[in-house]
Amino acid sequence: MSLESVARKFVELCSQGKNFDVMETMYAPDIVSVEGDGKETKGKGPVIQKSRDWVSDKIFHGEKVLGPYFNGPNQFAVHFTLDITRNATGERTALQEVAVYTVDERDQITREAFYYDGEH
Amino acid sequence: MSLESVARKFVELCSQGKNFDVMETMYAPDIVSVEGDGKETKGKGPVIQKSRDWVSDKIFHGEKVLGPYFNGPNQFAVHFTLDITRNATGERTALQEVAVYTVDERDQITREAFYYDGEH
Repeated sequence: MSLESVARKFVELCSQGKNFDVMETMYAPDIVSVEGDGKETKGKGPVIQKSRDWVSDKIFHGEKVLGPYFNGPNQFAVHFTLDITRNATGERTALQEVAVYTVDERDQITREAFYYDGEH
Repeated sequence: MSLESVARKFVELCSQGKNFDVMETMYAPDIVSVEGDGKETKGKGPVIQKSRDWVSDKIFHGEKVLGPYFNGPNQFAVHFTLDITRNATGERTALQEVAVYTVDERDQITREAFYYDGEH
């Protein structure tokens, strides 16, 4: 594949709500995930668990993905609009974020960095 | 100011179409600008000239800005939809891109990286 193929497959799967399929099949064993506050999580297992924890107190209705957009030999970015309901409040809301991904020569995603505003 | 104040001022001015005001007032003298192909331009003067060259063969009708979104102590991202007409073809089109900015302790933008897909 190539950066472009990886990125288009990523967007196609996420647009179908298959985010966990993406993580299981496209993330490198040594992936680093960076949250908006700069906190890093290392390793495919812990990174996927972080997402499972995030989803656990929400209903996830779906998402809209803009992109992919490319920079340099190994990075792509997307803009997500996540349609969720928080279980605690019953409030349905659209969370927006940008995510930047780094892809290595094995076509695996080795880094993800999330950009967002406020509570997430 | 703070990263957040800088980013919100940036988005406010860009949403008004005042992109060159942003460059003149918020860019550091030693800013580095990275295009989608990875090519870097260094220095406020050359970076602003690059944007003037880009605009020179287009009509710029306006733009929609999503964000700002934050990561870590010194970065923010936005999603632009640029409404332009190419003079060469008369074709009006909506160009989409993500841009990631780095802000230093002087509240100046020291780096911008553009992510996009295809011709731009």
